[in-house]
Amino acid sequence: MYDSSLHEECGVFGIYDKTGIDVPSTVYYALYALQHRGQESCGIAINDDNRITCQKGMGLVSDNFNESTLAAMKGNIAIGHVRYAAEDNASKENCLPLVINHLKGTLTIAMNGQIANAKQLRYKLECEGSIFHSSRDAEVVAHLIVKERLTAKSIEEAVLKAVSQLEGSYCFVIMSPRKLIAVRDPMGFRPLCIGSIKKDTIVFSSESCALTAIGAKLERDVKPGEMVVVSQDSMFSDESRSTEKSALCIFEHVYFARPDSVIDGQSVYKARLAAGAFLAKSHPVEADIIIGVPDSGVTAAIGYARESGIPYGEGFIKNRYIGRTFIQPKQSMREKSVSIKLGVIHANVENKRVVMVDDSIVRGTTSKNIIKALKTAGAKEVHVRISSPQFLFPCYFGTDVPDSSQLASCRFSVEELAKEIGADSLGFLTLDEVSHIALDSKLNFCTGCFTGKYPVEINKE
Amino acid sequence: MYDSSLHEECGVFGIYDKTGIDVPSTVYYALYALQHRGQESCGIAINDDNRITCQKGMGLVSDNFNESTLAAMKGNIAIGHVRYAAEDNASKENCLPLVINHLKGTLTIAMNGQIANAKQLRYKLECEGSIFHSSRDAEVVAHLIVKERLTAKSIEEAVLKAVSQLEGSYCFVIMSPRKLIAVRDPMGFRPLCIGSIKKDTIVFSSESCALTAIGAKLERDVKPGEMVVVSQDSMFSDESRSTEKSALCIFEHVYFARPDSVIDGQSVYKARLAAGAFLAKSHPVEADIIIGVPDSGVTAAIGYARESGIPYGEGFIKNRYIGRTFIQPKQSMREKSVSIKLGVIHANVENKRVVMVDDSIVRGTTSKNIIKALKTAGAKEVHVRISSPQFLFPCYFGTDVPDSSQLASCRFSVEELAKEIGADSLGFLTLDEVSHIALDSKLNFCTGCFTGKYPVEINKE
Amino acid sequence: MYDSSLHEECGVFGIYDKTGIDVPSTVYYALYALQHRGQESCGIAINDDNRITCQKGMGLVSDNFNESTLAAMKGNIAIGHVRYAAEDNASKENCLPLVINHLKGTLTIAMNGQIANAKQLRYKLECEGSIFHSSRDAEVVAHLIVKERLTAKSIEEAVLKAVSQLEGSYCFVIMSPRKLIAVRDPMGFRPLCIGSIKKDTIVFSSESCALTAIGAKLERDVKPGEMVVVSQDSMFSDESRSTEKSALCIFEHVYFARPDSVIDGQSVYKARLAAGAFLAKSHPVEADIIIGVPDSGVTAAIGYARESGIPYGEGFIKNRYIGRTFIQPKQSMREKSVSIKLGVIHANVENKRVVMVDDSIVRGTTSKNIIKALKTAGAKEVHVRISSPQFLFPCYFGTDVPDSSQLASCRFSVEELAKEIGADSLGFLTLDEVSHIALDSKLNFCTGCFTGKYPVEINKE
Amino acid sequence: MYDSSLHEECGVFGIYDKTGIDVPSTVYYALYALQHRGQESCGIAINDDNRITCQKGMGLVSDNFNESTLAAMKGNIAIGHVRYAAEDNASKENCLPLVINHLKGTLTIAMNGQIANAKQLRYKLECEGSIFHSSRDAEVVAHLIVKERLTAKSIEEAVLKAVSQLEGSYCFVIMSPRKLIAVRDPMGFRPLCIGSIKKDTIVFSSESCALTAIGAKLERDVKPGEMVVVSQDSMFSDESRSTEKSALCIFEHVYFARPDSVIDGQSVYKARLAAGAFLAKSHPVEADIIIGVPDSGVTAAIGYARESGIPYGEGFIKNRYIGRTFIQPKQSMREKSVSIKLGVIHANVENKRVVMVDDSIVRGTTSKNIIKALKTAGAKEVHVRISSPQFLFPCYFGTDVPDSSQLASCRFSVEELAKEIGADSLGFLTLDEVSHIALDSKLNFCTGCFTGKYPVEINKE
Repeated sequence: MYDSSLHEECGVFGIYDKTGIDVPSTVYYALYALQHRGQESCGIAINDDNRITCQKGMGLVSDNFNESTLAAMKGNIAIGHVRYAAEDNASKENCLPLVINHLKGTLTIAMNGQIANAKQLRYKLECEGSIFHSSRDAEVVAHLIVKERLTAKSIEEAVLKAVSQLEGSYCFVIMSPRKLIAVRDPMGFRPLCIGSIKKDTIVFSSESCALTAIGAKLERDVKPGEMVVVSQDSMFSDESRSTEKSALCIFEHVYFARPDSVIDGQSVYKARLAAGAFLAKSHPVEADIIIGVPDSGVTAAIGYARESGIPYGEGFIKNRYIGRTFIQPKQSMREKSVSIKLGVIHANVENKRVVMVDDSIVRGTTSKNIIKALKTAGAKEVHVRISSPQFLFPCYFGTDVPDSSQLASCRFSVEELAKEIGADSLGFLTLDEVSHIALDSKLNFCTGCFTGKYPVEINKE
Repeated sequence: MYDSSLHEECGVFGIYDKTGIDVPSTVYYALYALQHRGQESCGIAINDDNRITCQKGMGLVSDNFNESTLAAMKGNIAIGHVRYAAEDNASKENCLPLVINHLKGTLTIAMNGQIANAKQLRYKLECEGSIFHSSRDAEVVAHLIVKERLTAKSIEEAVLKAVSQLEGSYCFVIMSPRKLIAVRDPMGFRPLCIGSIKKDTIVFSSESCALTAIGAKLERDVKPGEMVVVSQDSMFSDESRSTEKSALCIFEHVYFARPDSVIDGQSVYKARLAAGAFLAKSHPVEADIIIGVPDSGVTAAIGYARESGIPYGEGFIKNRYIGRTFIQPKQSMREKSVSIKLGVIHANVENKRVVMVDDSIVRGTTSKNIIKALKTAGAKEVHVRISSPQFLFPCYFGTDVPDSSQLASCRFSVEELAKEIGADSLGFLTLDEVSHIALDSKLNFCTGCFTGKYPVEINKE
Repeated sequence: MYDSSLHEECGVFGIYDKTGIDVPSTVYYALYALQHRGQESCGIAINDDNRITCQKGMGLVSDNFNESTLAAMKGNIAIGHVRYAAEDNASKENCLPLVINHLKGTLTIAMNGQIANAKQLRYKLECEGSIFHSSRDAEVVAHLIVKERLTAKSIEEAVLKAVSQLEGSYCFVIMSPRKLIAVRDPMGFRPLCIGSIKKDTIVFSSESCALTAIGAKLERDVKPGEMVVVSQDSMFSDESRSTEKSALCIFEHVYFARPDSVIDGQSVYKARLAAGAFLAKSHPVEADIIIGVPDSGVTAAIGYARESGIPYGEGFIKNRYIGRTFIQPKQSMREKSVSIKLGVIHANVENKRVVMVDDSIVRGTTSKNIIKALKTAGAKEVHVRISSPQFLFPCYFGTDVPDSSQLASCRFSVEELAKEIGADSLGFLTLDEVSHIALDSKLNFCTGCFTGKYPVEINKE
Repeated sequence: MYDSSLHEECGVFGIYDKTGIDVPSTVYYALYALQHRGQESCGIAINDDNRITCQKGMGLVSDNFNESTLAAMKGNIAIGHVRYAAEDNASKENCLPLVINHLKGTLTIAMNGQIANAKQLRYKLECEGSIFHSSRDAEVVAHLIVKERLTAKSIEEAVLKAVSQLEGSYCFVIMSPRKLIAVRDPMGFRPLCIGSIKKDTIVFSSESCALTAIGAKLERDVKPGEMVVVSQDSMFSDESRSTEKSALCIFEHVYFARPDSVIDGQSVYKARLAAGAFLAKSHPVEADIIIGVPDSGVTAAIGYARESGIPYGEGFIKNRYIGRTFIQPKQSMREKSVSIKLGVIHANVENKRVVMVDDSIVRGTTSKNIIKALKTAGAKEVHVRISSPQFLFPCYFGTDVPDSSQLASCRFSVEELAKEIGADSLGFLTLDEVSHIALDSKLNFCTGCFTGKYPVEINKE
């Protein structure tokens, strides 16, 4: 799925370096490694003995930071953020980290996830006279923490009391004047891991690929419901909110995460490979070549190829330069939009029976255009294999899976959908299969978007 | 080779649309498709009834063009350019297209290549009192054309007389008040092809992938030594400078071009696949997995895997967000530089005997760091296979292959080099093999950097 | 005083145009006319049927607004702001207008002034769990209004209850979903006037010069303690907080306001002229020419010249291009700093006995440098006349008059100070005189910085 | 004349500092002092042992230079430029200084003036095959110098031979690898002076006000026709092209120059004062107040007031923030345009008979609007006095006096013009008077725009 409506919301990073060396550049390189999780805006906040500098703005890390902005940052605690933003809140006010002042000093928050009861919490806060500068869930949480802080004995106690009011998916990295705190929701919807650099530096990151990039060692994942608090002298963990249950978003493995990340014990790469293998077993077809839709379809395609014995080949060249400022083609060129973004490698598809592996189908329009491009390039047959089950229900936990009226799988049977998108055959992963692609995972998975059975109760108003 | 000193210099594009519809956006999308040929600067010049508008600047197409800049451009002839620039001429003055005024009006030039006798020609021009605003070869050529234009009957005659004085590699797309002219050097060092959109529009492009992107049909390649002139009423070709000889840069197939391009009849993708297959035959090794160094090593790796029967797997995730503004890590993090740019997929290399296919070795430092990263990730053995012969001589035709003192293959035997970079074995393509990777090519290849035998005489001063 | 530490904090503007024509450009031109009141940042917020667009940023109106930003603004209620910012809060977060969301919708606030009890109010709010994004007083007021709005029957009732808690100087222009509200503090420290354009448009402005600029008619001033509320159907006034007392800052006449403004019935120009005339009467001296330090000293100099009969002449050319980005000269050129900012007109001072009229002396350093420049240019004598009394006490109401330790007049007698700054004589306006320079004023004046007797009680902590 | 079509073209500055200390910042401050001569673009080129760095761009000095750009500049020879540009050549390519490379190295040129035979010279050069990147006269001159340099023994000989071919007005500051050269045309149309800082630094500047700003001593003016060459060891002058004649543009005194400048021995301030005095003698009128149109009308108004005994007063506040990016009011607000730019001080004109002194009338439209604004503000009578003779002929020497068809004085008699602009009376300076306003001037004046008798022959094609 090269350009669909399915999007991760954010990537977060935090660092507590007791020596204070190279903190800004470490966050900078870590955000480069997390950039795939959000390209709309980014930011770094750094704490120099409780004097906070925050640099953030629309666009990529490369658009917002240069040698002089980095040079201007000093301190030994810092948090960073990359964000994907839905159209309606893509404004400067909504950039993170959020820096606010309160009775006990300054509080800085970076967040990944979606608070299911944010609207209700916000309404309650507004009824008490709270004001909001943005439409971000993080601002709601900041209010809750600050309110709790009035009576709590410590910032970590306040954080704990605040997040206990939250429903939904969240990972927070929070910076107080003297502490760095990481929190993961009790279901563990979104990934968050802990790393170390030598003995003096602790880091938190949405994905382990950022640890590798900066030369940090992956210590472990923050557990669902866990809060980890780092200060100058100590690091301790609170697991009072942890339960037996867990529900990591399966799309972290299928689509969002970088394949070189390991999430809760499971290699993302291996999960994709396994998904492809399952597809080959359940939906075999005579074909000449297996191709994947970049980026996430590629690994699953290799898995399909290995299992089936049919050769793997590159089907498309993805244009790497298309970003936030890309001007969408006008009507007259609309059809060619796919060709601008994905160049078909004719040599691999001409006169061939092609199996095309993709990670998902949302509305179906994109698939239709890609298949058309393959057929125009001479593919004799195009068999589509999707490395996840059918989307049948909306997501309330931070992906953009839309409501049923827009989901192709709600409108068509598999056979109808194949016809609709122009595929010669179409196969999805089953629910049972998807739950087996990540056998190394210490966590169970959320399958709400496939089954409508959500791991936490949803107040659908 | 993910970040070496080997660089293509440029991509060029030209369009003559008799109807004048959508010309600016067509160039815009074409440059997106050619962006891999140069990311330092870019520009578009458009001719609205001999009123030229030129928009150019440092950075990517996405940095320099937006809806309003495109909206401000009108006209029916246009040329575009993307450029890689060596450190020493990465300035605004050197951005192309070059727009100059002379006795007969305005002349606009975009160029790909390197004029071997530029220094001598420039000196001769300076001795006649010419002044230069930039250090670009294109400015030398502009002077020559304008001088010839004084006595020539037409712009095309002037262009022909001017380029006859040039030695080296070049493709020009030139815009005069009423004509669009494409020229390729007699050896055909750099690619240039002709396409059409419906019947009213002719386009020229460095690579055919840009034609596909904009929905144009690939008509044919501009022949070595050919000049093609498009005007409102006609299109004609001059082949007076063509010979039997040709010498397309083999690195267009090995490294520079996009694999979905077809150059002089040869699919780039197939050439890379063939290179990998040759390597498998000549340099077999017992291994568990074949990986490629992105981007160009990947296809050769697939070719190796197919031929050898050993499974192909993705070895690295390349960070797609590292661009012109990326801050190189300081000494303390220098070693980790590779990890920031290439994330190793542990699942594919841990405890495995790995064959790593790359396109070339220049200085050897990059290979050394990559191999180290693989071993750190647990690879038991790393066997390096290079999909081209050893670099032994400098290039004078537009790539940055440096002089012998910096070339690893001049300093070490293959065995020594393997040791130097930490490879368990190392194999290069032979000269004979490389000449057989592109059997569909209508052109022969330049092998100067392997043999020191250049297709044209080099004045080495 | 060409570049002293004495600064006005802001200028505000509001417009309710029932027809909605040209609202953004009207605010734009009005802010140009108010730019002298603040050059650090500016902003415009506009209400299009309760959809607020806000554009703000560091720098001048000309730095932040262009045709396309203005074109993007639509609506029929708008407020604008220009701001001077002390070094320590010159950041983007502190730009106004402030736009916040609360239970009853969106609230937008622009403010001029300084809340004397802001710290206490903020502390009280923080103790209730409020969070702050900026260090602006306006954010404190937003909190108060929103809290009151929970129980108040209307936004105007909430505003009234909120401002009743404030001490200090303030003018607010506030925009609610359907209303435009202007409030002036009970002492009327800062100016605020009402204008109209035809019958359908009401405007509020810090100074009447902005009304003239946009072709509006000056209706009257907002009275001290008055709140004026404009809605689609009506305009009404609340004077419940008005008293007999008033205390307009005299420095609005002496220094801050534009001389073509009329404040509370008094022409600023005439007040300056009168101040100069008083100086001539009380501090006569034999001299050849009267010059003024631009900009505000010039009019007083003309007044002195007329009263004394000694010719007026221009003493300095002020460099009009020195703004926010000006790089202060390094040590080696520090002394010349005055010459860069003020060019002495030799023809007027060489071999002459000069009376130099300035509006005030804060630290004395600037005066010293200017006098030195005049003497270097050949002035035989320099007699300094100051068109206000001596600064002896700090200001708590929105000017930057610093505390006594930094005030030259606290450290030196008049004679000593004359010597210190190199003047041949020095004369200040008396307290009695300054109270008579603005006889047309409907308001009395604050003289706190001269007498230490402030019109409202000051909690000095 | 607050915003007319009459414009100076440029300001130039050059520095040769044998010690090389503070060169970039000195040019920076000097350009601030020359900014009134051109606000469209600016640039600084600096020579660090023949390595030239050039920073230039559209807008003010404050838009183009900051601490880091200045810090990046090193060297001991530098030239700077500020430029006013007519609409049709306001592009980046036309910014100065012009830096070009030629046989003997790098040549850098800054220029003020207008070459009357530029078109012919350019045509001649084009016939020889020269190419042009811009439409600037400076580029023509660069070509001439470089051509002469081929045979000349030194750069100064080449410059001399080149400028001998020029007709018109010009001041050049030229930087060669080791020399700084200043040239003034034989008539001395435009000002150029020499200053020194201590014993090691020589500077050239269009106006002496820049010398004062940087703490340099005004040594003398470059004489008409003189060339001054500064090198490490020596400074010498060539006067071979000087004659008895001279023709400084009188509008330097009337309008362009800063009043604190001294040009060829004459104080600009005194010249303006004298012009006002002449007007009072020749065009007396019963009135209550004398006002000047800022900026240049003010000094003449003071002169008129002194001579007539009628009090001087400020009539207008000029908005200092209106610059290049100012959006001109749309039709609906067009009339109010004057009010945005010039605020009338009612106190000074209401119920008064006003004498308004301005420097010139070009088309008459501006005067009409200003007078209307005064009458709207309550002026009983408005008597207009112009401190220069009537414009009857176009200028070919660097001001924008347009051709006769657009000149109000060509279309109307004085009485008719008074009526047309709404003045109660109108008086101009006579030709005889204007020639006596600058009795200290060592140079005679050009009066071509008044008389049509130009000091050099004009080839009017």
